[in-house]
Amino acid sequence: MNKKMVFSTLGQLTLSEAALMTLPLIVALIYGEIKVAASFLIAIGIALTVGVTLYAIFKTENKVIYAKEGFIIVAFGWIIMSLIGALPFVLSGDIPSYVDAFFETVSGFTTTGASILRNVEALSRGGLFWRSFTHWVGGMGVLVFIMAILPSISDRSIHIMRAEMPGPIVGKIVPRARETARILYVIYFAMTVLEVVLLLIGGMPLFESVIHSFGTAGTGGFGAKGDSIASYSPYLQWVITVFMFLFGVNFNIYYLLLMKKVRSVVKSTEFWAYFGITAAATAIICANILPTFDNFGDALRASAFQVSSIITTTGYSTVDFNLWPTLSKTVLLCLMFIGACAGSTGGGFKVTRVVIVFKAIKQELKRLTHPRSVSVAKFEGKSLDRVTLNGVNAYLALYTFSFIGIVLMISFEPFNFETTFSAALSCFNNIGPGIGAVGPMGSFADYTGFSKIILSFAMLFGRLEIYPLLIALTPSTWTKK
Amino acid sequence: MNKKMVFSTLGQLTLSEAALMTLPLIVALIYGEIKVAASFLIAIGIALTVGVTLYAIFKTENKVIYAKEGFIIVAFGWIIMSLIGALPFVLSGDIPSYVDAFFETVSGFTTTGASILRNVEALSRGGLFWRSFTHWVGGMGVLVFIMAILPSISDRSIHIMRAEMPGPIVGKIVPRARETARILYVIYFAMTVLEVVLLLIGGMPLFESVIHSFGTAGTGGFGAKGDSIASYSPYLQWVITVFMFLFGVNFNIYYLLLMKKVRSVVKSTEFWAYFGITAAATAIICANILPTFDNFGDALRASAFQVSSIITTTGYSTVDFNLWPTLSKTVLLCLMFIGACAGSTGGGFKVTRVVIVFKAIKQELKRLTHPRSVSVAKFEGKSLDRVTLNGVNAYLALYTFSFIGIVLMISFEPFNFETTFSAALSCFNNIGPGIGAVGPMGSFADYTGFSKIILSFAMLFGRLEIYPLLIALTPSTWTKK
Repeated sequence: MNKKMVFSTLGQLTLSEAALMTLPLIVALIYGEIKVAASFLIAIGIALTVGVTLYAIFKTENKVIYAKEGFIIVAFGWIIMSLIGALPFVLSGDIPSYVDAFFETVSGFTTTGASILRNVEALSRGGLFWRSFTHWVGGMGVLVFIMAILPSISDRSIHIMRAEMPGPIVGKIVPRARETARILYVIYFAMTVLEVVLLLIGGMPLFESVIHSFGTAGTGGFGAKGDSIASYSPYLQWVITVFMFLFGVNFNIYYLLLMKKVRSVVKSTEFWAYFGITAAATAIICANILPTFDNFGDALRASAFQVSSIITTTGYSTVDFNLWPTLSKTVLLCLMFIGACAGSTGGGFKVTRVVIVFKAIKQELKRLTHPRSVSVAKFEGKSLDRVTLNGVNAYLALYTFSFIGIVLMISFEPFNFETTFSAALSCFNNIGPGIGAVGPMGSFADYTGFSKIILSFAMLFGRLEIYPLLIALTPSTWTKK
Repeated sequence: MNKKMVFSTLGQLTLSEAALMTLPLIVALIYGEIKVAASFLIAIGIALTVGVTLYAIFKTENKVIYAKEGFIIVAFGWIIMSLIGALPFVLSGDIPSYVDAFFETVSGFTTTGASILRNVEALSRGGLFWRSFTHWVGGMGVLVFIMAILPSISDRSIHIMRAEMPGPIVGKIVPRARETARILYVIYFAMTVLEVVLLLIGGMPLFESVIHSFGTAGTGGFGAKGDSIASYSPYLQWVITVFMFLFGVNFNIYYLLLMKKVRSVVKSTEFWAYFGITAAATAIICANILPTFDNFGDALRASAFQVSSIITTTGYSTVDFNLWPTLSKTVLLCLMFIGACAGSTGGGFKVTRVVIVFKAIKQELKRLTHPRSVSVAKFEGKSLDRVTLNGVNAYLALYTFSFIGIVLMISFEPFNFETTFSAALSCFNNIGPGIGAVGPMGSFADYTGFSKIILSFAMLFGRLEIYPLLIALTPSTWTKK
């Protein structure tokens, strides 16, 4: 293994985080928050020291890396980013406990949006900005971001991209990985700016527009108010609904649209499955909650918002869906499992995998009744090879077992089953709120430090799709040649 | 498709059920329950009429069947058995509603043990006997039973056996399927008799000893008392604990022991995994509930009993584990998912599959870090071929989706998430009690007729491992050549 390359890349990553933290530093200065600005300055200093040290010690000419190095860089990269990113919260006094601050930062980078804050409005402006900015950076991928802006990372960086980008099949849009990363970030940036503008038009103040666009773009869910999006106008709620949905779409679709390849878009199984599930869930919930609303429009807005928010794993809310009937809550729990499209900023199991798993089942049914025939499952026109099918199936198994493990580890806590189950699901799938005590109006504040650490790692496992951390934490990775 | 053979076999099956119902008829006569005896007589008459008609119309010389016919015979066989088996309960007035009686009978044959009865002690002796006898018949398989006793079924009946026996790989013990069925039933019968004797020694009355041995042998869970096994002596509780565990073991193990092939038994991955999970779960729960018990012995007995009962999907209880801490309840929920060994009378996902899925994950991890190496997963000394691996993985996916579908369909009901989730899990995995309102001291009585039918089919899907019913209900099975 090329350990030097692993650690020098981690050094570069830490340096990049120092650069990213200058933005909240500027925000804190604008709002005259001297103590907050100072805490960002100290954090930047620490990041620079760590980064320069790592880079200086492990600098290497041999930039060749393989799949294993890619997984390890991503796994440790995300942990280091979170460890350092938590510092400003503690130093400024916004979040006095380091464990809490780590939870909040992991929740930010992984675009989960689960919070240990009881009162988000008490946070400093600089802290609020940094908290939401981590969503934006984490959404498309921290390392993909660095690949897009730094020229020095080797061109074998496709391994890093593959380890960090969600979904079963990572397609490079263009042959070079760095070019792909750049295109993705340009689309991502443009859509974020468009949302800010549309929110400004609706009368939302600039600071809040930026915060909520970060939260929507990264499908994170951190906001600026205690009641999330509930107190904003119907227009603003609809804008956020539409953008949550859009950021849950595979970004390849937007690239294809830019290239005017409309036919490929129309034929995308994944997109239509995602659209169909969203529409069906909205219809079911709207019918189910209609009696509790004054008019159809309000019920539709509430259901469309919550469905978009949950399937994309954003986690914003306009109503306390914890009070909805069991059917609606169960539909939302199903959406939590499914998640958004592969290649989007959303989390969860991913629509693509759901579709592929259905195809695998269909193939197995054929095999059982016609044991001797040979049939091939297809996806988006291409035949699914056994390796992809096995990979998706193994991931489902690993996903299920990991989820059960997380539920077990946090079930020491004095919460009921609904809360425990949905807290684990919400963190593992990077959603944010669950139901019960961790519902949209609750928080994770009452969990013990032990559970907060478990749930922080659940968020990391979920965002990175299990394998990178699992491989990094397997002893044989480090001992074997 | 050989439709004649399908329907004439179903005719034979119905005739066999008429024969089986003579036993509760005799029991009713012994206890002087004339009305109950009359209702069994009428049900026997109906079964004979249906059976003779089907057999006479579809009698055929062409006894050749394939996998598809096997699945269809099993699927319809179980539905017909349940439809007819429910009649005596309605006719005798034991269970006035036919939907309720159908639920109870399906619960019996599938060895679930979920009940709609609020007061089981009000049931007639004949009714109680029939209810528990269905467990015993369903445990090892209705059609396997008929294969063991009737000479007329073709020797291609391995297809029927494969469709009815649980587990990913059905090994014939001896080359001929009928001989295998006979050996299985001899072991099954002998173990049941042994349990009756041991319960009698402990002072349990004969009728109750038979009832509870049926319930244990089939891993069903129907008992004779409102508080299940709680009011019996510690000795009797330990006897039942041990036998629940034993009936959850793959029956091949007992055959190997009879053949004195001890080495094969010692090397059985499945058995040791099953033993290990049971021991670990007992230890965790015992430590967790210890503070609420007077002494260690009582806590160990309570945890060992409940763990054996739940992992084997029997469903007997000695305490109301609904009142236990969340950790213990979560451990029990995990055991509900896992289930017993393949080739036993227990339900669930099966220990074998859990082990195979873990191997598949390990293989996938290897593939990700060493994309070009070829590695082969092994199970019990033999290498796992891709077809088995794919099959197990596809089953996990189908299992997960089916489970989510069931939860959705019954979440219209006004119960909380814990109850809804565990009711679906309990029926689908053929366990019996869940937690919350359907906990060991509750019942399914308050569900609507619609949900009772959904849950009845959930039990059938679970017992037959999804595929037979799915194939029988797929239109293309009937239209295509």
